[in-house]
Amino acid sequence: MIKTDILIIGAGPTGLFAVFEAGLLQLKCHLIDALPQPGGQCAEIYPKKPIYDIPGYPEVLAGELVDNLMEQIKPFQPGFTLGERAETIEKLDDGSFIVTTNKGTKHHAPIVAIAGGLGSFEPRKPLLENLTKYEDNGVSYMIKEPEVYRDKKVLIAGGGDSALDWSIFLADVAKEVTLVHRRNEFRGALDSVEKVQQLKNEGKINLITPAEVIALKGEDKLERVTVKNTGTAEEIEVDVDTFIPLFGLSPKLGPIANWGLEIEKNAIKVDNTYDYQTNIPGIYAIGDVNTYPGKLKLILCGFHEATLMCQSAYQKIFPDKKYVMKYTTVGGVTGFDGSKKEAPKAVVKAID
Amino acid sequence: MIKTDILIIGAGPTGLFAVFEAGLLQLKCHLIDALPQPGGQCAEIYPKKPIYDIPGYPEVLAGELVDNLMEQIKPFQPGFTLGERAETIEKLDDGSFIVTTNKGTKHHAPIVAIAGGLGSFEPRKPLLENLTKYEDNGVSYMIKEPEVYRDKKVLIAGGGDSALDWSIFLADVAKEVTLVHRRNEFRGALDSVEKVQQLKNEGKINLITPAEVIALKGEDKLERVTVKNTGTAEEIEVDVDTFIPLFGLSPKLGPIANWGLEIEKNAIKVDNTYDYQTNIPGIYAIGDVNTYPGKLKLILCGFHEATLMCQSAYQKIFPDKKYVMKYTTVGGVTGFDGSKKEAPKAVVKAID
Repeated sequence: MIKTDILIIGAGPTGLFAVFEAGLLQLKCHLIDALPQPGGQCAEIYPKKPIYDIPGYPEVLAGELVDNLMEQIKPFQPGFTLGERAETIEKLDDGSFIVTTNKGTKHHAPIVAIAGGLGSFEPRKPLLENLTKYEDNGVSYMIKEPEVYRDKKVLIAGGGDSALDWSIFLADVAKEVTLVHRRNEFRGALDSVEKVQQLKNEGKINLITPAEVIALKGEDKLERVTVKNTGTAEEIEVDVDTFIPLFGLSPKLGPIANWGLEIEKNAIKVDNTYDYQTNIPGIYAIGDVNTYPGKLKLILCGFHEATLMCQSAYQKIFPDKKYVMKYTTVGGVTGFDGSKKEAPKAVVKAID
Repeated sequence: MIKTDILIIGAGPTGLFAVFEAGLLQLKCHLIDALPQPGGQCAEIYPKKPIYDIPGYPEVLAGELVDNLMEQIKPFQPGFTLGERAETIEKLDDGSFIVTTNKGTKHHAPIVAIAGGLGSFEPRKPLLENLTKYEDNGVSYMIKEPEVYRDKKVLIAGGGDSALDWSIFLADVAKEVTLVHRRNEFRGALDSVEKVQQLKNEGKINLITPAEVIALKGEDKLERVTVKNTGTAEEIEVDVDTFIPLFGLSPKLGPIANWGLEIEKNAIKVDNTYDYQTNIPGIYAIGDVNTYPGKLKLILCGFHEATLMCQSAYQKIFPDKKYVMKYTTVGGVTGFDGSKKEAPKAVVKAID
């Protein structure tokens, strides 16, 4: 059982920044995310795209923003349960919660903050017989640890940036990379498309287009796929260790929708007049996942909501303590790791 | 008469960021500030101090934050009325406002957003007979344009960072710099204190401590001050063109307190359930100047408030238009100056 002060569901920018504000209040955080790394959409969907409306950043790449937030919260040593989806919640008699993931990992905390963005990102899956048989057994929808594919035979399907970028990356790692796409045209960053063209010319990527994977084969685990060239109607058998369909991720509110929270237009209703708490005391919703009159789904709004949520959480956890806010410029930042950042002190010194 | 869409009173971080959010909605902004440059406290009081709680910045100097915000809002060409204090407001029959400064500059806008921070910063003044006689006539409380002092005789009084830093700066510009402080000890950044010591040793700063200016003299304008060494009781006459007492700035809500706004604990009450509007329709209050249940006086909260304020202002100005929010990552930023920033477009390209 993982124990923490604030259990944050969703490790996007809002969830990450909540760790910082909680840390200033000496509260510890643990984050659960269905994606294999922190950063939410910013890291998974558009890490190389610029954002122009983060206050104080005329321009920042989404991936850089995540890196900076990770650096900012480092002193507060957040815990992470990644690649798992928060599935069920149970309220104990003392008002605290136990949240269990789809893989059975249990988390216990007095406060739950849902920072789930548009929901947990679920991969779009191909329509193939036997697909579930091979899931986690030769079929992967996300690449968590590229080293797993070292010296393996990998077949990637898809025609967007993920398919292009992972084909490029794995061309150096895997024994064999086959890229299958239903069209001849790929949609992505120009340099990615050109790089794949080059790797194909060098024989480092085996390209089959326009084509589709139409069958999965193998005794206990995936051993072979059938690829049909939809131009020529020819069917080819390709030996593979792994089939990675990268057809995009589609956000789903998912199991959270069944937690008894008030939902409106696929978002969780919160009390924006005070602390972004939901209809269940002790459960907050911050960032894109919540809704209230005038709500804007902007990262900068999530930062504000996270901050007010932490203040309210502090009062719930320590009803008898009075917290006096100190500006970081004045009080500095004292990490749980013993680190201390603070402004250079003024000296009092005679001039003679 | 200066005309704009949103007249922002206060050019601190919150007011500056409002320009950006308004710009995304194609609304023009003009800012009034009592200080001689944009940035509010961050620029005037602690430009060299680090802030640790700006989301996405593990550490940023207050002055850098202001520079970055100025860069971010540049495409939206804000107007500035600096060194003037918003004094009176008048509501016209059509619901728009005319705001006049203490120097008589008039501004006309359908929307007024007060982003006044802790108030307008008023200099702490020495208790001296004839002081008002010489104001703007030999006595200055703030340095707006250092070049004004080129080849002049300047006497600075004070013992903090401002007195130290301006003495150092003007030592290279003015003909003579005299620094008077009531103690021998100065309080400031170590390198500033050391630099003043060095300039004093080199004869570039004339230091008199512990001492006080006790009289101002001159026919039409300031010509001479009397400095009393409080250690020896000796009185010295010093010929000066300018006397600059730098005894700190103290924030005062000031004339805004008389605008008919609901005030609570020296802050303006706003409707935090929707758009941070005050009790007077069309006047908003954002950032440290406002108050509502759970209010935190943090820059990041001001950013959020500014954003929601702009949406509401847009609806007021264009009641019949429906604005559909576009993410900057998707839609880019189109400046009023014809500039355009946007994410590199994906290509659709065949690989053969």
